[in-house]
Amino acid sequence: MEPFRYHVYACQQEKPGNAPCCAGRGSAAVLDALRRELAAKGLMDTVQVTTCGSLGMCERGPNLVVYPEGVWYAGVQVADVPELVREHFQNGRAVERLAERDAAALKKEIAENRAKAMAALAAQQAAARK
Amino acid sequence: MEPFRYHVYACQQEKPGNAPCCAGRGSAAVLDALRRELAAKGLMDTVQVTTCGSLGMCERGPNLVVYPEGVWYAGVQVADVPELVREHFQNGRAVERLAERDAAALKKEIAENRAKAMAALAAQQAAARK
Repeated sequence: MEPFRYHVYACQQEKPGNAPCCAGRGSAAVLDALRRELAAKGLMDTVQVTTCGSLGMCERGPNLVVYPEGVWYAGVQVADVPELVREHFQNGRAVERLAERDAAALKKEIAENRAKAMAALAAQQAAARK
Repeated sequence: MEPFRYHVYACQQEKPGNAPCCAGRGSAAVLDALRRELAAKGLMDTVQVTTCGSLGMCERGPNLVVYPEGVWYAGVQVADVPELVREHFQNGRAVERLAERDAAALKKEIAENRAKAMAALAAQQAAARK
């Protein structure tokens, strides 16, 4: 039961310091370009866009996931947005050069980035207790 | 291609003033309870949890969407979390009393809330220009 034909979750995670994150890698500009392109193509009613927290591919953002297919896209640039909208949302074909197709490698990367984030948080909390 | 068996997006949207939003309706406590319950049941590797911005059922939060099924849950309370984890993530059955099953009504509600948010933003911008 999905109210929209497509639903995009767009990571906008900010991380402290120099930690790699989608926000630091241009996710706001990609989100803005995506919304403008969807509006320009009359697809606002077909494609829902929701911001989200870290998807776990932090060194390779900006990252998006598109449902119902569950296609994970990494390193999406503003210049990729017209192709993404045309191919995925108008022609129903994922943009393979941006799509993650190795689920096991992706899961491992996400787990490693989660462990890093937890360690950084623990260090921050330990420092705050000193 | 999904790296996780289940992926939950949990709205944590904050809105200014008294505007209804998941954050104002307890979404942080629900998120915390969900993460603790998943850890307690050994499901951290099976169920990925990602925070997200407004899903558009702002008066009825806290709201979650669960993929790959695309089940939209509204008004999830801390007390609902054990049932949700057991039924949906262990037994593979959506919790129907919390699930939205009228896609057209849901889409209309989301569109109305988006229009309200846009109007509030426009009013704020007009006030700032005065």
